[in-house]
Amino acid sequence: MINIGIIGAGRIGKVHLQSITYHVKNACVKAVADPYINEETEKLIRNLGVQKVCRDYKEILGDPEIDAVLVCSSTDTHAAVSIEAIEAGKHVFCEKPVDHALERIQAVADALAAHPDCRFQVGFNRRFDHNFAAVRKAYDEGRIGEAHILKITSRDPEPPNPAYIKVSGGMFLDMTIHDFDMACFLTDSDVEEVYVQSAVLVDPAIGEQGDVDTAIITLKMTNGALAVIDNSRRAVYGYDQRAELFGSKGMAATANDTLSTVVISNGEGVTGEKPLFFFLERYMESFAEEMRQFVNACETGGEVPVGIHAGMQSVKIGLAARRSVEEHRPVKVSEMDAV
Amino acid sequence: MINIGIIGAGRIGKVHLQSITYHVKNACVKAVADPYINEETEKLIRNLGVQKVCRDYKEILGDPEIDAVLVCSSTDTHAAVSIEAIEAGKHVFCEKPVDHALERIQAVADALAAHPDCRFQVGFNRRFDHNFAAVRKAYDEGRIGEAHILKITSRDPEPPNPAYIKVSGGMFLDMTIHDFDMACFLTDSDVEEVYVQSAVLVDPAIGEQGDVDTAIITLKMTNGALAVIDNSRRAVYGYDQRAELFGSKGMAATANDTLSTVVISNGEGVTGEKPLFFFLERYMESFAEEMRQFVNACETGGEVPVGIHAGMQSVKIGLAARRSVEEHRPVKVSEMDAV
Amino acid sequence: MINIGIIGAGRIGKVHLQSITYHVKNACVKAVADPYINEETEKLIRNLGVQKVCRDYKEILGDPEIDAVLVCSSTDTHAAVSIEAIEAGKHVFCEKPVDHALERIQAVADALAAHPDCRFQVGFNRRFDHNFAAVRKAYDEGRIGEAHILKITSRDPEPPNPAYIKVSGGMFLDMTIHDFDMACFLTDSDVEEVYVQSAVLVDPAIGEQGDVDTAIITLKMTNGALAVIDNSRRAVYGYDQRAELFGSKGMAATANDTLSTVVISNGEGVTGEKPLFFFLERYMESFAEEMRQFVNACETGGEVPVGIHAGMQSVKIGLAARRSVEEHRPVKVSEMDAV
Amino acid sequence: MINIGIIGAGRIGKVHLQSITYHVKNACVKAVADPYINEETEKLIRNLGVQKVCRDYKEILGDPEIDAVLVCSSTDTHAAVSIEAIEAGKHVFCEKPVDHALERIQAVADALAAHPDCRFQVGFNRRFDHNFAAVRKAYDEGRIGEAHILKITSRDPEPPNPAYIKVSGGMFLDMTIHDFDMACFLTDSDVEEVYVQSAVLVDPAIGEQGDVDTAIITLKMTNGALAVIDNSRRAVYGYDQRAELFGSKGMAATANDTLSTVVISNGEGVTGEKPLFFFLERYMESFAEEMRQFVNACETGGEVPVGIHAGMQSVKIGLAARRSVEEHRPVKVSEMDAV
Repeated sequence: MINIGIIGAGRIGKVHLQSITYHVKNACVKAVADPYINEETEKLIRNLGVQKVCRDYKEILGDPEIDAVLVCSSTDTHAAVSIEAIEAGKHVFCEKPVDHALERIQAVADALAAHPDCRFQVGFNRRFDHNFAAVRKAYDEGRIGEAHILKITSRDPEPPNPAYIKVSGGMFLDMTIHDFDMACFLTDSDVEEVYVQSAVLVDPAIGEQGDVDTAIITLKMTNGALAVIDNSRRAVYGYDQRAELFGSKGMAATANDTLSTVVISNGEGVTGEKPLFFFLERYMESFAEEMRQFVNACETGGEVPVGIHAGMQSVKIGLAARRSVEEHRPVKVSEMDAV
Repeated sequence: MINIGIIGAGRIGKVHLQSITYHVKNACVKAVADPYINEETEKLIRNLGVQKVCRDYKEILGDPEIDAVLVCSSTDTHAAVSIEAIEAGKHVFCEKPVDHALERIQAVADALAAHPDCRFQVGFNRRFDHNFAAVRKAYDEGRIGEAHILKITSRDPEPPNPAYIKVSGGMFLDMTIHDFDMACFLTDSDVEEVYVQSAVLVDPAIGEQGDVDTAIITLKMTNGALAVIDNSRRAVYGYDQRAELFGSKGMAATANDTLSTVVISNGEGVTGEKPLFFFLERYMESFAEEMRQFVNACETGGEVPVGIHAGMQSVKIGLAARRSVEEHRPVKVSEMDAV
Repeated sequence: MINIGIIGAGRIGKVHLQSITYHVKNACVKAVADPYINEETEKLIRNLGVQKVCRDYKEILGDPEIDAVLVCSSTDTHAAVSIEAIEAGKHVFCEKPVDHALERIQAVADALAAHPDCRFQVGFNRRFDHNFAAVRKAYDEGRIGEAHILKITSRDPEPPNPAYIKVSGGMFLDMTIHDFDMACFLTDSDVEEVYVQSAVLVDPAIGEQGDVDTAIITLKMTNGALAVIDNSRRAVYGYDQRAELFGSKGMAATANDTLSTVVISNGEGVTGEKPLFFFLERYMESFAEEMRQFVNACETGGEVPVGIHAGMQSVKIGLAARRSVEEHRPVKVSEMDAV
Repeated sequence: MINIGIIGAGRIGKVHLQSITYHVKNACVKAVADPYINEETEKLIRNLGVQKVCRDYKEILGDPEIDAVLVCSSTDTHAAVSIEAIEAGKHVFCEKPVDHALERIQAVADALAAHPDCRFQVGFNRRFDHNFAAVRKAYDEGRIGEAHILKITSRDPEPPNPAYIKVSGGMFLDMTIHDFDMACFLTDSDVEEVYVQSAVLVDPAIGEQGDVDTAIITLKMTNGALAVIDNSRRAVYGYDQRAELFGSKGMAATANDTLSTVVISNGEGVTGEKPLFFFLERYMESFAEEMRQFVNACETGGEVPVGIHAGMQSVKIGLAARRSVEEHRPVKVSEMDAV
């Protein structure tokens, strides 16, 4: 049984609390820390059986009964808190992105190198989605052959509010970062080069923040495969999350999940349901599965499924994508090493 | 090259004329006869290169250059004209049903027994539909195993006018007769017993004609398989024509054909096209294919794909279905032998 | 918060225990009773936080802290235990079928009439399945119009062992009973008449037990709609659970659920996943939802979604189906009233 | 009735001959010219009722009874023959590409400017495909809203032989040229900028010819939409031809066409048919439709659906794509004006 402390009681912190409580057999949340916690949230947390609710995450780091912490605080604190937790001897699950700055991610990597027994996992939950995991499985089983073309469609149902866009690091570090990690996951490869063609088509207010809301991003993978991601901040039909991996022996393609399989035929046509609305609906089971695998790695000392390398790569690709937009040219990910 | 005469220039006669002209390489329509032909139809026929247009079908039967005739006149004349044609030494393609009376179908069978060189085909065109033919192919290849359950859905987009219902012989001999033949075709078997549960749900005027418009018909096949047909005279979404054959090794199921594969996703859902509207849209290619196979049988002396046995069986089953409704009990098809 | 006692710790008892523990917020399992309980099961139950594990269900009935019981014992005890529980002042959730004998179901109904505050729910979990519930919702919203034809496909992946068949009451009371209830649920109507065409096609050993393994069952609903159920004890591709409701304004149809949406295209074709294997995979969420609704009815005093009427009807229809096979004729459900 | 002469009796010339003979009511092929014609081909042509078969296309141009010519000769002769035909007063249907050299396409445009009554159509048949035409229709009807992202998948079942690659102008001018035109058609817009990420993954022999066999091509359309094309010279599952247009109000997506809708469920999964094998299977009806529309334009003097502008644009985009590969950068189509 792994005892867990959660640092940050925002939306994603609560998701993990519920996942562990209801869906992870060999773990137990002992404490939750959040400096801005309100009464309602505290009540919700206590109702799920958590013994300690506090404001200072250092109480968690100092608790010898706690084996592992989930870093669910704001992005700018991920790296620092993670390093403290590593040095306090805890296993760490850190939400994505680890940081917007590569040198701070490197500092986490350095801390991990000094603490080889620490299990450190990054929160790329989509790898655990039933559909995407099945594509990777088909690839691993040799049913696709050599990977030639990967296509990822990733469209949100609605844009975040403009204030959030400012602090989010922009679409590539906030939204596409999941797709960059997915590209690496599905092809089992890193990215060599990025080219972005982007636009502001959804909302001019996003452009006024210096960001884009629509993009086609081409990737050259280090294993030779080509990949393309298309992003939009608003699909009127809901959250559109698909992938298609094409190779020398075949193609694996996913469709969106829906609430039911019901199809209505009438004078207008033959109509099925829209995709599940957004990430909390679509990816809830994947949040549980990433927790299960993290807890298992902590308990058995086995490898985590998503380590610091993935956390670093995804941000590098995101920064390369930003530069591609600025300089309107293909950018090698290795150019970011000098950032 | 087979020279063909068409007897009857109504809707289905014109369909066959066009099929042969455009889609059958080794046949040519030399003459068309129809006592009620009008100028417009005559012009249409001549524009397709037909040399002789006449009122009396006996001109066709007497023409030594004509190898085969298509009997497309009204149902009550099918048997008599077919027998005359057989005796005149022509090959015969006869529209369905051969007749509503079993003794007249038997008379045709007797004429055929006396003229073994005559190729005689009945117009069950749906056997040549790409979807249904693919189900039978899968069955023949052993991919379904032993047949256990066959389901046929057959629903029209709109009911015929009440006047037609009166002369049509009722839903079972007019509409379901295609499905009875399909059940025999897809299971490669005859029918042993019929039970009908039916209702008037679409239009009370149909009930006033003594007919039904909605039915579920259970068949016990002679090979042991069970089959069920569901019929409606009105599906608001269009012509619904599907089959599903389930057996010991697997299931083959068809979907409806559509004008395009386009699917529109929006705030209402994910909407594909309705089925093709009615039989002229859905089955046009099957009409051409039945002609090709008939002409080939005439030319090579090979077997026709749908002979007098199928013509007889389908009517027997239809009559048994009518009796099942009247007597509200399962009826053996063999009971019809005494009709 | 509703305190629950579970009577019977077999497969379905454990399913409900887990559902309540993990998925029902306002309920708590306080006790489990099973005369044949073993150490392993007891450990499993205690690990889920259940305080009392006993052999005699009367301990549960006598516990004043327990508000509601789940009757998950063997079928032959359902009615007697339910009546005892009703008289002990407990709310009751009774697994299906309530009994094989109508008079014993009537005895339960009589007990309920004498205890109007008792909430009594029958375990027809499939009504809570996301797909079937969506069909009913479409019907309630008027999107189907008047119901004309209902089709239910219900096929198991493999037959039960022969010993079970003997005590199960036969396919109609064991397996089809769910489909009978589904027919009533989806058309919001009772059944007037039943006709069965059945066969032994899967395994002769089933026939030797006096049972059948393949059937097409036609129902005439009291609201005038027609319905058909097709059953098989073995579909090689897995658990096949579909429904299609066709009416004057449109059709709602469901497909099977799968583990993922992945489709592989290669030289063999375009291949998607098989249906989820069996009822524990397919219906797990529906088991949770029926518990949520039962607990809510207990807590609020509102109506249960599936009451004794449904429990009685489904068995009557099953008995009528058996008689239809024996006497090879359509049987009115009202004939069972005299049983 | 339009009298037609066909110049070039290769594969595509024969396709048009058959389309006109069987599927275009108001046209008639009077003559076919091909310097390399053999006996077998001549026989085939005569069997379809063509009166004149000759070696010199000038016989066709000089025949006053011929209203329109189809230029189906080798690509390097398209422009010169078209200009001769225009000057001879014929309407012209010219196969794609009009030429590999922009100045020669400009010469055709100049000839057309001098002969305003000439109907000149370019052979981008895919615009007439039922699926792609339905996407454009949905867009024209406002169901997609403003176009944001267009995705085209275009993969051949097998690469051409290496000798053909040499003379074809490379993948972008031979294969992708159809997709460039499709991008313009589906968004009703020209292309502003092209970026190509390409590779040799299918066959090293293609790389040895200086060509590529796999590519992801990003387009910026002049109306602001973004588009991406993915190409492969070999999809093991057959010809993959899909498009998806995403906009402010919805998305229209197509699937591949198949021989039948049959789906087989068994222990391996649920398997549908592969896409139709190649362009002759998939696009046969679109070849007929482009002929119908060309003939109608000739007969009525109306506008052709695909004129010299489309012929010019597609080659410009193809040349820009080639330069993007050579110089590894995004290339504006306007840069080609100076070629």
